[in-house]
Amino acid sequence: MTETPHQEPAKRERSCLAIILAAGEGTRMRSSIPKVLHRIAGRTMLAHVLDAVRRAGADRIAVVVGPDRDDVAAEVHANAAGARVFVQSERLGTAHAVLAARAALEEGMDDVVVAFADTPLVTPETFVRLREPLGAGATLAVLGFEAKDPTGYGRLIQEGGRLQAIREERDASPEERSIRLCNAGLMAMAGSRALALLSAIGNSNAKGEYYLTDAVALAAKAGAAVAVVLAPEAEVQGVNDRVQLAAAEADMQWRLRRDVMAGGATLVAPETVFLQSDTKIGRDVVVEPNVWFGPGVEIGDSVSIRSFCHIEGARVAAGAIIGPFARLRPGARLAEGVHIGNFVEVKNAELGPGVKANHLAYLGDATIGEGTNVGAGTITCNYDGARKHRTEIGPNAFIGTNTSLVAPVSVGAGAYIGSGSVITENVPAEALALGRGRQVVKEGWARTQRPAKG
Amino acid sequence: MTETPHQEPAKRERSCLAIILAAGEGTRMRSSIPKVLHRIAGRTMLAHVLDAVRRAGADRIAVVVGPDRDDVAAEVHANAAGARVFVQSERLGTAHAVLAARAALEEGMDDVVVAFADTPLVTPETFVRLREPLGAGATLAVLGFEAKDPTGYGRLIQEGGRLQAIREERDASPEERSIRLCNAGLMAMAGSRALALLSAIGNSNAKGEYYLTDAVALAAKAGAAVAVVLAPEAEVQGVNDRVQLAAAEADMQWRLRRDVMAGGATLVAPETVFLQSDTKIGRDVVVEPNVWFGPGVEIGDSVSIRSFCHIEGARVAAGAIIGPFARLRPGARLAEGVHIGNFVEVKNAELGPGVKANHLAYLGDATIGEGTNVGAGTITCNYDGARKHRTEIGPNAFIGTNTSLVAPVSVGAGAYIGSGSVITENVPAEALALGRGRQVVKEGWARTQRPAKG
Amino acid sequence: MTETPHQEPAKRERSCLAIILAAGEGTRMRSSIPKVLHRIAGRTMLAHVLDAVRRAGADRIAVVVGPDRDDVAAEVHANAAGARVFVQSERLGTAHAVLAARAALEEGMDDVVVAFADTPLVTPETFVRLREPLGAGATLAVLGFEAKDPTGYGRLIQEGGRLQAIREERDASPEERSIRLCNAGLMAMAGSRALALLSAIGNSNAKGEYYLTDAVALAAKAGAAVAVVLAPEAEVQGVNDRVQLAAAEADMQWRLRRDVMAGGATLVAPETVFLQSDTKIGRDVVVEPNVWFGPGVEIGDSVSIRSFCHIEGARVAAGAIIGPFARLRPGARLAEGVHIGNFVEVKNAELGPGVKANHLAYLGDATIGEGTNVGAGTITCNYDGARKHRTEIGPNAFIGTNTSLVAPVSVGAGAYIGSGSVITENVPAEALALGRGRQVVKEGWARTQRPAKG
Repeated sequence: MTETPHQEPAKRERSCLAIILAAGEGTRMRSSIPKVLHRIAGRTMLAHVLDAVRRAGADRIAVVVGPDRDDVAAEVHANAAGARVFVQSERLGTAHAVLAARAALEEGMDDVVVAFADTPLVTPETFVRLREPLGAGATLAVLGFEAKDPTGYGRLIQEGGRLQAIREERDASPEERSIRLCNAGLMAMAGSRALALLSAIGNSNAKGEYYLTDAVALAAKAGAAVAVVLAPEAEVQGVNDRVQLAAAEADMQWRLRRDVMAGGATLVAPETVFLQSDTKIGRDVVVEPNVWFGPGVEIGDSVSIRSFCHIEGARVAAGAIIGPFARLRPGARLAEGVHIGNFVEVKNAELGPGVKANHLAYLGDATIGEGTNVGAGTITCNYDGARKHRTEIGPNAFIGTNTSLVAPVSVGAGAYIGSGSVITENVPAEALALGRGRQVVKEGWARTQRPAKG
Repeated sequence: MTETPHQEPAKRERSCLAIILAAGEGTRMRSSIPKVLHRIAGRTMLAHVLDAVRRAGADRIAVVVGPDRDDVAAEVHANAAGARVFVQSERLGTAHAVLAARAALEEGMDDVVVAFADTPLVTPETFVRLREPLGAGATLAVLGFEAKDPTGYGRLIQEGGRLQAIREERDASPEERSIRLCNAGLMAMAGSRALALLSAIGNSNAKGEYYLTDAVALAAKAGAAVAVVLAPEAEVQGVNDRVQLAAAEADMQWRLRRDVMAGGATLVAPETVFLQSDTKIGRDVVVEPNVWFGPGVEIGDSVSIRSFCHIEGARVAAGAIIGPFARLRPGARLAEGVHIGNFVEVKNAELGPGVKANHLAYLGDATIGEGTNVGAGTITCNYDGARKHRTEIGPNAFIGTNTSLVAPVSVGAGAYIGSGSVITENVPAEALALGRGRQVVKEGWARTQRPAKG
Repeated sequence: MTETPHQEPAKRERSCLAIILAAGEGTRMRSSIPKVLHRIAGRTMLAHVLDAVRRAGADRIAVVVGPDRDDVAAEVHANAAGARVFVQSERLGTAHAVLAARAALEEGMDDVVVAFADTPLVTPETFVRLREPLGAGATLAVLGFEAKDPTGYGRLIQEGGRLQAIREERDASPEERSIRLCNAGLMAMAGSRALALLSAIGNSNAKGEYYLTDAVALAAKAGAAVAVVLAPEAEVQGVNDRVQLAAAEADMQWRLRRDVMAGGATLVAPETVFLQSDTKIGRDVVVEPNVWFGPGVEIGDSVSIRSFCHIEGARVAAGAIIGPFARLRPGARLAEGVHIGNFVEVKNAELGPGVKANHLAYLGDATIGEGTNVGAGTITCNYDGARKHRTEIGPNAFIGTNTSLVAPVSVGAGAYIGSGSVITENVPAEALALGRGRQVVKEGWARTQRPAKG
């Protein structure tokens, strides 16, 4: 983008601190892994939230973790350079957790957004919308949703169109319980007011905890503007057990599938195709039922991906035909028109245009030139028990069936390997190589092996 | 059927012209392929509609396509011999499109049915019902449906039980918007009135287009009988983008699955089984989860198809066991009691009764006699880089594991092939054939290869 | 549990007879197999019901079958030792069917429960609840459910909170038809009253049959207490055709999936994972989409099961990595940290800690020591056409790719097998073994095979 000399004075971007609460124990997960490190579409829930707040314009990120959670801290640093980790040493409620990041709050950012690492589906767009009322003068903005069944959620109590309080289920009157507008938990606060508000929250309640939701009543009582921003219910669902984890995964998958279809790919049975956030699929690609995409996949235009494929870390150029029953592993680079057929695995291998490997093969740590035909049962023996070695095959070669290519080894352009060969030495271009026993026949032998019939 | 001499005078069959509109651009598909050539259950949407109107008794078929759409025209001819293709050179609305087939309309058929190539789920039975009011004297019959959510659809406006008009969403009063009876788009017209009606439609509207739906108000005003025929909403859904394409595929699949189950096959998890319109599955077949059937499959009674199978163009006789992880390709002909196990591919091959190939094999261009056992890793080397050749194996042979059968080659009845053999010459009946190296052992060698331990 | 010397006098357990009706013809299944032998989650419907009543405390079980149903009787005996089979020789209604077990009824058990072999989802807990009113003095307890759509079901007619009758759809008044509380068919009766009640049921109805449901009105008229016990609708669904069989399978699968997730396993896409009642899955196991578990599977903690696996009769210890595209068959015993990769089948084989078999292999009837690496394409040739033999491989061996191990054969600790070898004789520890042809090269040969260019 080139600079235009006389542009409009840019509306000043409001600075933003995002505080992500990631200290929950998650006992209902019944896991030795902390809850926020469980994965959705291949990434931890924490990584999803870090990514969303960053894309929503957070300049600084603070993550509040439980004590001795080096694993959670490591995931923060791996996904958000510059994010700071704060430890909440005692579990005294959500407001207490936010105040664990007091040092970050004291830096005086314009907006403070509070997010939850176990609410992984909130989009960047929703975080942006949540901040908008602050720009218009609100002190607080609460993310709400219309619950299909509000049972168990805190209700948003409004009077004269203004949010007055968040009423927990147990404290709600029957009339209030009929309210379907509920609290999603997320909040945005004017940075200038955040510390004062948070510090004013008390703990005179049954559990003796400091609840972030109390900020609403405090702000309302003080006459401050408190806004409600709505999000779809599916987007704000929290994850507390494995059933909810699966539900969040399903919602995320549908989001990804719709994007892929909108981009011009056919998913014959989208409910059976599993994608990652970074999966790139070109136009007029047809994906048959039951295909799994792992991280780092790029599929070119008009590729056909048949059923039962498992693809990760692979690049596939236009017009290729993959599967059924193909596995592409990291480092697979397939040029235009490559055919990879059933029960074939490709790993860390570069296949030139039009290469065909249609049946029962393992191609690992290899380079294969344009137009080469790889026979059924071909295996690159890339591992000698200690190290991995490469196999280099030139263009237009013919590798006979059941061939073992013992790497490091090369096969020249246009060479021909006879079926069942073990190739341990380089094969020159245009040569025929055989490495197999000669056939011998013992006539009538089989008859002698059979039990004599009475 | 033999003729009976004194039969009742047959009710004269009404002649029928079906006009299929197939000129839509389908930009929301984001595809280089015209919309009506996208596929559902393996066939193009256009082919589904051609098939449905033909089975509903259409004597003549006219398909209206956009300019320079030789691919669409070719699909018409491939699926409906004798159908005529008309080109709509400008896009001036649905009535204008129908009039592109003026030459067909002038031939004076009794009934004219207007169908849409992007509404592929309408059944022949529905087309028959749509024509029925014409036989009873109606001038026009409109296909309607009760919409779960009518937003966006044209409403069917009735007065005193008679259809008066089709009101588009934007022109509807609030009261009219509450009507859930909507227009599916399809219509049947008395052939004698069709040209006059269509020609009377004007284009004094915002877009300056000629709308087929205006025929209703014109006919009603003229005092003609206009009927409404109802269809289920799922059946009349149109396809405008890939999400709708997937929805139509899902509906079609459930239709096919219910038919197969009604016929006496168990689909353990029907939502994971994918069928074609021509899939034939016998009684007491059990299909485990995750099986894909392509075109041209016939499965006999009491066959067991285990999970993760991919089957197309194959015939499987009674009592066979297929999979898991089996692929049957076109030309696979499996006799009674054949077992095809995991990671086995069969293509263009005839397997006699009781043949077993249970593990990791490729059987292509082969004939295998009754009772033969094909070992794990067996591969028919049917391609020499230039041509395909056949492998012939007699009955009751034993093919050892990891055998390469270099075609053309034959193995006689009762012969025995040792493991790891490359068979390049014919093996007589009852013979033992070996084609492999002799084992040599270097004692202590492995120890010398290890790094010395300090 | 140790005995406490002064415990409360135990409430006497009521004795219980369960009568299971299994004589229905099931013509709508369109099957040559009797309906109650069709399977859900791998077990016959009859076996599910036998198991449920046994776990609900039935001391004696009587199963009523149709004439000449040795197959059904055999399934009874295979699943419930001591259960008695009674034959209903004519089909004269459900009460008549129950009376076929008159000899069992005459033995005077406290409770009699009537269950249906084609209603396979009723839980033991529900059977226990159904018996509870009898303990409190009721003569009869009827299992009811709130139907989403009651059409076709018998309605439970109550007056003043007491059940008066079960009204069949055809006999119901419009008002009664609006009742959504319906009859599930199952009943519990006081054993002391059962025979008298059943004998009093007449057949003055259109079909001339004896209906068990008439017991309700008879008991009510006699002033006896008749209770209604509620169950969820999904639990009491009957199976009359293959579509309903699939629906019951789906409900059972969700029950099993929720249990597995509650136990601390992640099912990334639970709707694509298929389980059996006896599947045991440890904590922090992650199951990717599309995995099928057959009977007899135990998976240890923190195992990773990737997509497209088919696992039955296998035990997998902690930390193993399975798949994608792996098949574990009965007798597979995998120790800690084993890796089984794509297109690998393991059957009746014990793999020591850390064994790796990552590509295209068949390991059957084998023992493999700790740390051994099994190359791609390795096959244990366990079958010689007549008998199965074992392969024994020591620890830390290296099996080169495309090796055929012709059993019976052993490979010693630390031995190294060269690629493409056929191993027919035992290999000592630390030795190198090769069994393959030597490579020969014919330079320029391939060029001579090409058609000369004009």
